[in-house]
Amino acid sequence: MAARVLVLNGPNLNLLGIREPEVYGRDTLDDIVQRVRGHVADRDVEVRAVQSNVEGELVDALQDARTWADGVVLNAGALTHYSYALRDAISATELPVVETHLSNVHAREEFRHTTVIGAVCIGVVAGFGADSYLLAIDGLLRHLDR
Amino acid sequence: MAARVLVLNGPNLNLLGIREPEVYGRDTLDDIVQRVRGHVADRDVEVRAVQSNVEGELVDALQDARTWADGVVLNAGALTHYSYALRDAISATELPVVETHLSNVHAREEFRHTTVIGAVCIGVVAGFGADSYLLAIDGLLRHLDR
Amino acid sequence: MAARVLVLNGPNLNLLGIREPEVYGRDTLDDIVQRVRGHVADRDVEVRAVQSNVEGELVDALQDARTWADGVVLNAGALTHYSYALRDAISATELPVVETHLSNVHAREEFRHTTVIGAVCIGVVAGFGADSYLLAIDGLLRHLDR
Amino acid sequence: MAARVLVLNGPNLNLLGIREPEVYGRDTLDDIVQRVRGHVADRDVEVRAVQSNVEGELVDALQDARTWADGVVLNAGALTHYSYALRDAISATELPVVETHLSNVHAREEFRHTTVIGAVCIGVVAGFGADSYLLAIDGLLRHLDR
Amino acid sequence: MAARVLVLNGPNLNLLGIREPEVYGRDTLDDIVQRVRGHVADRDVEVRAVQSNVEGELVDALQDARTWADGVVLNAGALTHYSYALRDAISATELPVVETHLSNVHAREEFRHTTVIGAVCIGVVAGFGADSYLLAIDGLLRHLDR
Amino acid sequence: MAARVLVLNGPNLNLLGIREPEVYGRDTLDDIVQRVRGHVADRDVEVRAVQSNVEGELVDALQDARTWADGVVLNAGALTHYSYALRDAISATELPVVETHLSNVHAREEFRHTTVIGAVCIGVVAGFGADSYLLAIDGLLRHLDR
Amino acid sequence: MAARVLVLNGPNLNLLGIREPEVYGRDTLDDIVQRVRGHVADRDVEVRAVQSNVEGELVDALQDARTWADGVVLNAGALTHYSYALRDAISATELPVVETHLSNVHAREEFRHTTVIGAVCIGVVAGFGADSYLLAIDGLLRHLDR
Amino acid sequence: MAARVLVLNGPNLNLLGIREPEVYGRDTLDDIVQRVRGHVADRDVEVRAVQSNVEGELVDALQDARTWADGVVLNAGALTHYSYALRDAISATELPVVETHLSNVHAREEFRHTTVIGAVCIGVVAGFGADSYLLAIDGLLRHLDR
Amino acid sequence: MAARVLVLNGPNLNLLGIREPEVYGRDTLDDIVQRVRGHVADRDVEVRAVQSNVEGELVDALQDARTWADGVVLNAGALTHYSYALRDAISATELPVVETHLSNVHAREEFRHTTVIGAVCIGVVAGFGADSYLLAIDGLLRHLDR
Amino acid sequence: MAARVLVLNGPNLNLLGIREPEVYGRDTLDDIVQRVRGHVADRDVEVRAVQSNVEGELVDALQDARTWADGVVLNAGALTHYSYALRDAISATELPVVETHLSNVHAREEFRHTTVIGAVCIGVVAGFGADSYLLAIDGLLRHLDR
Amino acid sequence: MAARVLVLNGPNLNLLGIREPEVYGRDTLDDIVQRVRGHVADRDVEVRAVQSNVEGELVDALQDARTWADGVVLNAGALTHYSYALRDAISATELPVVETHLSNVHAREEFRHTTVIGAVCIGVVAGFGADSYLLAIDGLLRHLDR
Amino acid sequence: MAARVLVLNGPNLNLLGIREPEVYGRDTLDDIVQRVRGHVADRDVEVRAVQSNVEGELVDALQDARTWADGVVLNAGALTHYSYALRDAISATELPVVETHLSNVHAREEFRHTTVIGAVCIGVVAGFGADSYLLAIDGLLRHLDR
Repeated sequence: MAARVLVLNGPNLNLLGIREPEVYGRDTLDDIVQRVRGHVADRDVEVRAVQSNVEGELVDALQDARTWADGVVLNAGALTHYSYALRDAISATELPVVETHLSNVHAREEFRHTTVIGAVCIGVVAGFGADSYLLAIDGLLRHLDR
Repeated sequence: MAARVLVLNGPNLNLLGIREPEVYGRDTLDDIVQRVRGHVADRDVEVRAVQSNVEGELVDALQDARTWADGVVLNAGALTHYSYALRDAISATELPVVETHLSNVHAREEFRHTTVIGAVCIGVVAGFGADSYLLAIDGLLRHLDR
Repeated sequence: MAARVLVLNGPNLNLLGIREPEVYGRDTLDDIVQRVRGHVADRDVEVRAVQSNVEGELVDALQDARTWADGVVLNAGALTHYSYALRDAISATELPVVETHLSNVHAREEFRHTTVIGAVCIGVVAGFGADSYLLAIDGLLRHLDR
Repeated sequence: MAARVLVLNGPNLNLLGIREPEVYGRDTLDDIVQRVRGHVADRDVEVRAVQSNVEGELVDALQDARTWADGVVLNAGALTHYSYALRDAISATELPVVETHLSNVHAREEFRHTTVIGAVCIGVVAGFGADSYLLAIDGLLRHLDR
Repeated sequence: MAARVLVLNGPNLNLLGIREPEVYGRDTLDDIVQRVRGHVADRDVEVRAVQSNVEGELVDALQDARTWADGVVLNAGALTHYSYALRDAISATELPVVETHLSNVHAREEFRHTTVIGAVCIGVVAGFGADSYLLAIDGLLRHLDR
Repeated sequence: MAARVLVLNGPNLNLLGIREPEVYGRDTLDDIVQRVRGHVADRDVEVRAVQSNVEGELVDALQDARTWADGVVLNAGALTHYSYALRDAISATELPVVETHLSNVHAREEFRHTTVIGAVCIGVVAGFGADSYLLAIDGLLRHLDR
Repeated sequence: MAARVLVLNGPNLNLLGIREPEVYGRDTLDDIVQRVRGHVADRDVEVRAVQSNVEGELVDALQDARTWADGVVLNAGALTHYSYALRDAISATELPVVETHLSNVHAREEFRHTTVIGAVCIGVVAGFGADSYLLAIDGLLRHLDR
Repeated sequence: MAARVLVLNGPNLNLLGIREPEVYGRDTLDDIVQRVRGHVADRDVEVRAVQSNVEGELVDALQDARTWADGVVLNAGALTHYSYALRDAISATELPVVETHLSNVHAREEFRHTTVIGAVCIGVVAGFGADSYLLAIDGLLRHLDR
Repeated sequence: MAARVLVLNGPNLNLLGIREPEVYGRDTLDDIVQRVRGHVADRDVEVRAVQSNVEGELVDALQDARTWADGVVLNAGALTHYSYALRDAISATELPVVETHLSNVHAREEFRHTTVIGAVCIGVVAGFGADSYLLAIDGLLRHLDR
Repeated sequence: MAARVLVLNGPNLNLLGIREPEVYGRDTLDDIVQRVRGHVADRDVEVRAVQSNVEGELVDALQDARTWADGVVLNAGALTHYSYALRDAISATELPVVETHLSNVHAREEFRHTTVIGAVCIGVVAGFGADSYLLAIDGLLRHLDR
Repeated sequence: MAARVLVLNGPNLNLLGIREPEVYGRDTLDDIVQRVRGHVADRDVEVRAVQSNVEGELVDALQDARTWADGVVLNAGALTHYSYALRDAISATELPVVETHLSNVHAREEFRHTTVIGAVCIGVVAGFGADSYLLAIDGLLRHLDR
Repeated sequence: MAARVLVLNGPNLNLLGIREPEVYGRDTLDDIVQRVRGHVADRDVEVRAVQSNVEGELVDALQDARTWADGVVLNAGALTHYSYALRDAISATELPVVETHLSNVHAREEFRHTTVIGAVCIGVVAGFGADSYLLAIDGLLRHLDR
């Protein structure tokens, strides 16, 4: 099955591999996107990656995905916890979106409240570091296959 | 009475008429703005419309309105529920602002919490679909007449 | 379109124009009903007005409206905030009801909690003084036209 | 000073002296009103008493008091805890109202939540059985004297 | 055993069989009362039925029941959730009262909060449609037999 | 109508008639089951009774009931208040289940929180002592008859 | 009846008549104590007054009152809202204590939470300025007379 | 890398494929375990599966896993939401545990509260039906590889 | 005084001395029971010890203790926080039960909520490691002596 | 082992043996201190006792104990529930402190909220009357021995 | 400008430089007061310092400051979080008060709830160790200059 | 000491000196930045100022500051209360950041909830109008000196 996937990353994730590598690992966001592409290299999957610190640009990217993508792997960063605008945009895409986190948001002390986007995502993968992205795209592709 | 009105729309409202038309109706945002202009055609009212998915740009638009507008019809979308920055901007305009919603936010299940901008708006119109905008500008003009 | 509308008012609204006119305006409830009738004079609309301080009599009026009215403009006053009996009666009418308030309930400090009737009304108009009634009946008639 | 006072009693207070006399005492409501009249017999005070189980009739009585009374001694019974309609009526009277209870509502276990009418009364007297009414009218008359 | 029972119904229950019959069944309140009478026909039980939309009239009916009834089957409708006045009246009757509901208030989504009258009733029967009344009077009679 | 009914009892109900008889009565659980059997003796109803202090064994019993029973009378004891596992098992049986309690859980002071199983039961009977079981099976059989 | 009464005042009440006289009146605490003494001059009542800003000294004064007083008029000031130590001391006195406030704590915006001492006082008088003390001692003496 | 994995399932998961197949899919728990074994067939991984409806037996299984397993894939069912005993057992194993759910617990309306075991798991996979188990074991093995 | 005491331990306490010895000490549960027996060796006290990971088996053990024991030292582990079934069983034993914890549950961060069994225990000892059991049985024996 | 222990008692504990002896026993605080001294007579332990109704004096005593004591047995009375100043003082002593109560604070109805000092104490003993002090000092001495 | 400033410190701050110097620094309170005096040496400012562990003595110091001071630098320690008596005293001084903390109360884990005195202070300085006092008096003097 | 400082301002602060000057003062943001530069003119400090209404641009500015600045004076405006993205960016800078406000956020009525950025800032200065910026940079420079 041919599929096109948006890998979308929110605020501060452009600092991956730079800040607190002992917590978040040494992979930069580019490294992770390359690993995702390598992971699906033998499947007919196109991966486009977008990162922005601006909530509205993430909304734009999701709206744009309606026109070309089959699904989304989304790590919304801190916006996970309060961006109802992102939530509405996910609903509006009518695409399957997988909520993705590097660390287990239930286990880390800095977790606050809960996810406001979870209710409009098909699933969640969290806690496996950069591998979370690989598991998330696997889950998304299996979902698209059904 | 001559009046100039900003019709300001927040995140995802550029998808009106496209997403979930059975819920939100088939009018696009342009259609609605045209209906607003037609509705006040026989009154000396200038209508300018702005839409943005970026919270800060909506703040900019409200700040700019201080220099030219007499009032604002505002549908803040999901930002209704958490944007204290928008709330501060409304206070700063010192213009009358009418909070406007297509559907009745008290009746729809996806409503969460409450409006944080309501406390700085003069009034609210909700639940009449695209007609909410017509009633809102009517109410705003009556307010300006007093 | 011919339409019959009940304008229903709850506790203490019989004092409009008398108590705190600097807040609620100098129009009596009769004045407002006359203004509503004048506002729809050129449309084939019959307006009947009921006011009561007794919750159960408002329930009776709503039940009775099932037999003759096409819709309701309702200002429930303080009962807005706790009358589940009124809410059940609105559901039972199976008529479109527009929740109406003179002032913006989100902005005034004496607002408490929230509306318990909002979930069963088609829409809300608040904050325009006596003009709220005019906008409410406009919205109701537009709703009936669809 | 000549004064006219409404002694207003809410739901179930017509059963005073009948139900649970070991808790509420053996005085009937008539006995209490007579004691109030006796207590002010040597002052030029007219006391009128109203009791109703219907919230709306208590609202009516308060609205009516605007036309003849100088102040109100009010035991709202269970309505103390949820009647915002009564609260609005008290505000509308623009008369001094003293909240009165036979028992100390803070001490008795069956107390729930708090008073919603307290915020619009000038004071409260509670816990002295039927004597609460005597203290309440004393406080009201002293208030009127100032 | 000879017994006299008040079957007391609150707001909007006069619409039973008329509104939303697919939810509440096609029996009118009169039908239900007749079924209750038929159900106890071979027992020496007198059944009197009262319905009112006015909270204070329900209080009156409960107070009056002190003078003639042995127990009460009470469906308070929406007042179940906020009428502390009704609760006080139940306490005042010193009669056994069975809280009765057509549907299971814990299961239906429109349930809000909880019952404020439950604490002063001897028991509750809910969820069996009109049969709830039959089970309730059975339970009440068994209670009186003990 | 022939029917088979599981009467299922949770933790500590094996002590009925032994502990605190002045509160819960002198009937043992066996006595109650015999009374239930006697109550339906003239109807073609088979009653099987299970009691366990182990949540998982109650889940097993409910799962097993899928293969032979037409309905369940369930007194879950303390598990009423926190066993989501029992709740899932009730949903899984796809059988009508009546929540049953000896005393009125809303009236007794030791009641905590609320029922988590109520939402998946067809109805509730509480407050009639051992008679609650008789009323519950009556309600269940009437439900099966419809 | 001969009676001895402790008039006990908590933190900051030594500033009465000095700070914010437009809110609290121009009477100093000494003035008020003199007015209380004058008010009971024709009754055989001894009034002793204590004021302290230290919670523990108020506890001492209450403990000491066990040895000589028949009752207490207590204005605990801000300690009303959080001093469980004072509450325990009131219980320990086994004397009737009347909670007293100059202003209506339910009506003033600076009121927070509620009273923690109310549950162990026989009654409350609030809202009548310095007259609250006069009403409080009247209520206390009536209580002692019973 | 050779690895041994416990796939542990909690209450009611023995009904997978039987109850509500339109929601949870038609795979039985045995089917899923076979799919997991097939998924890791070409890796040196031993999979042992345990299911129990009894919380304490799940605790036993986790304690036992200390002696033989390298990690755990855990679907605790309803116990996810309240079993602190299971949580302590996970901590005691000192093994990596992946919280696994068929559906997205944040999206389904029957979700209540949150997970109490999440804080002691390394990660979570939810929302991909039976595929969640495959992604979970992939994530666990990647974790063990690091 | 001759006495028989049940030392009852809940989920995961069979791992004492094995998991996290730096937190919970190196004594196994058997060691602790031996220390308890040694501690009371010169008093005529029989100590029986039970541990189970299954809530219902703990309930069984408490019910059984009614037939032979004079009191209970109970460390309920995680069930302390949510087992209302255990609480009912404690009430049913009508035996004195001392709540016991190795560490101070108020001081350790993993403490959640509070104890639901505390209200039916005579006392609590916590924070002294294995010594808590010795202090608990001392307290229990002193209680039995009174 | 030689040890010096401060036995520190808070507000109203000077009334022990005097107020409500049926609840708190007939031992005065002096009696209890003597019993503590007798209990450790054969161990080389010096016991100094301080009681104050003033929070700040208890803080002083704790600060002073830094200079001479090895540990503290503390019954803070009502201050247990709100004195963060006492909590800071306990932290500042850097001495082991045992929280002590005569009655089981979880079981008695007058308990409110929870302890704010528990988090900085090493352990708690409650519920054994005056014996609680004996158990507390035993626990403290065992702690010092380790 | 000549100014007189009270530097007021609450419970346990007399231990500064002694307890936990790695957290709070090695400056004693006297050192800090000297640094404050040195910091304003070239301005005509008199600094008086008071410290007490007794809430009521802090109230006394604030009341006394009315007679001689122009402003207050206040570090209330733990009383920050619950002393409404201190709050009332601040209001009563009608002097500008600057809330001061050594560490950032929002950042430190031991922070609980929030400040109850903040609402009556002109500003807050926190997080700069002993330097907080220097910044606070700078801010206070600038405030007095305006 | 040479230092480079970013003075960063959030939404609506570009309106300083324009909107509500009676509340916020007549200084524009440029005026304030000039005052800050003048204040540190005799110290070797470079001040760069950035203002944006867009949350993501503030995140960008903070990320950029990692490459050149020694510390940050941050007035986040309304974002103070909900921007977890800004909080993450502050953490990522690994620079000392001082939270700064013109008015005392604890004292002004429009304050809501609390700061979500406070936990990652070294300190806070609030309530001194434009002088807050001067005190904040003083505090920051003192911090850098240590």
